[in-house]
Amino acid sequence: MSGADPGTEPNEDSAGEPSARRKPVVVVVEPETPGNVGTIARAMKNFGLTDLKLVNPPELREDGEAYGFAGHAREDVLPNADEVTFEEIVENYHTVGTTAITGEDDQSHERFPFKTPAELRASLKTVDAPTAIVFGREGRGLNNEELSQLDEVCSIPADDDYPVLNLGQAATVLLYELRELTVDETQLPDTEVVRAAEPDIERFHEYFGDFLASTGQREHHREKNALLMRRLLGRAHPTEREIHSLLGTFRKATTKLEHADHLAAKYDEPVYPRE
Amino acid sequence: MSGADPGTEPNEDSAGEPSARRKPVVVVVEPETPGNVGTIARAMKNFGLTDLKLVNPPELREDGEAYGFAGHAREDVLPNADEVTFEEIVENYHTVGTTAITGEDDQSHERFPFKTPAELRASLKTVDAPTAIVFGREGRGLNNEELSQLDEVCSIPADDDYPVLNLGQAATVLLYELRELTVDETQLPDTEVVRAAEPDIERFHEYFGDFLASTGQREHHREKNALLMRRLLGRAHPTEREIHSLLGTFRKATTKLEHADHLAAKYDEPVYPRE
Repeated sequence: MSGADPGTEPNEDSAGEPSARRKPVVVVVEPETPGNVGTIARAMKNFGLTDLKLVNPPELREDGEAYGFAGHAREDVLPNADEVTFEEIVENYHTVGTTAITGEDDQSHERFPFKTPAELRASLKTVDAPTAIVFGREGRGLNNEELSQLDEVCSIPADDDYPVLNLGQAATVLLYELRELTVDETQLPDTEVVRAAEPDIERFHEYFGDFLASTGQREHHREKNALLMRRLLGRAHPTEREIHSLLGTFRKATTKLEHADHLAAKYDEPVYPRE
Repeated sequence: MSGADPGTEPNEDSAGEPSARRKPVVVVVEPETPGNVGTIARAMKNFGLTDLKLVNPPELREDGEAYGFAGHAREDVLPNADEVTFEEIVENYHTVGTTAITGEDDQSHERFPFKTPAELRASLKTVDAPTAIVFGREGRGLNNEELSQLDEVCSIPADDDYPVLNLGQAATVLLYELRELTVDETQLPDTEVVRAAEPDIERFHEYFGDFLASTGQREHHREKNALLMRRLLGRAHPTEREIHSLLGTFRKATTKLEHADHLAAKYDEPVYPRE
């Protein structure tokens, strides 16, 4: 840990060891709707965060909307949320204020310059500081006086006709975008390892060439169709199982097609039925 | 337009011209909670989409939660939502099914291979096809029988401990990630143009060098501090106004520091106060 003290317990992982990188805390300033607090808590749990801090929150009843919207975060993130003051956050964290409405240029600095969520992720990756992502009220967001006390500004690019996201949705997008810094392991398997090996794919292309030949296509058609299949698989990144299934299918077809040639020759029949 | 007919009106922009690229439609299969339909409608409007299709939806009352959660999308996306059948969507669109729970490998193909939202964006960028992003029920998502009829699978990477996003939040993340394909113009100004010009930044560094000299620092300290400032500004990408403000500040300081040297010499005083 650096000299800066976030004023709270450092992040620890479930084994009680300090995590390699301090994860951001999420601050919501004067949320009006308990449901949005629940939505934010759920997004935090979905994206690996646990430390929720609330400035002047509404009452969060266990039978109310905050808990109703929180999913499994009702078990930990939400009941462990701290009530704090805005000043405590400013004093103890590197702070990132969020806003849908930015400045247009540097005539004033409350809302400009700003980062997009992707830029924020790239920037936070390079430092290890106790960081707070600060969201404002549903209706009015963070005001200029508040933003002027925060270190950075972040804004989600959205449609110019209607760029104002709902508070819970904005937090979800931002935490999704920061997941690389906060999620240790996702639910998604590593798909790289199951892509078919190149030699298997090449073997498939050989078999597919045999198959094309066995259909009786002329050579220039066969070449075109072989290339078409190469491009198709090249884009699709087939899995090992897909390649082996395809290989089995075409191998069987080729065997039968070649047998048809044999039968046709043996019985002096055409290889394709007469029209 | 290609030969494929999406079976509905092609997307048109507000001027009535066909848009350059067909934007995806959003399909929600058997949503249970009107509020989630409203949240999805709002995310659509935030990220430039308009065409919402619902399979077996609940009643959406104008005084109910769907309209309550939709923000400005209550004016267009929500009232214009179509009721459709799952089969109509399968027949007329390139379909992307969404799920939090993927297969682990290619032992079965209902949920594998899958794309992440970023991979889906990259892939959809390369084609122009009528595309439907299909979301499932709150509780159970899309089932295997439904997914097996859809062309692709997309899953949001989230924390392995709790990867299941709320339906409305999942849709928000996915539509955010696809915004490059769907949002014509964001609310965010182009910040590139307001970064200070390199010659202005270099001029600042010259002035800052003069300032360091005027403080009386020894040369090797000045060099270190000049480089420190160069690195700091290099990372911060200062705006034109910031550079000019800084320049003004240091110019004024330098003037006063040099005057202090003059006064000290004139009156045979030390340039720094005695300890």
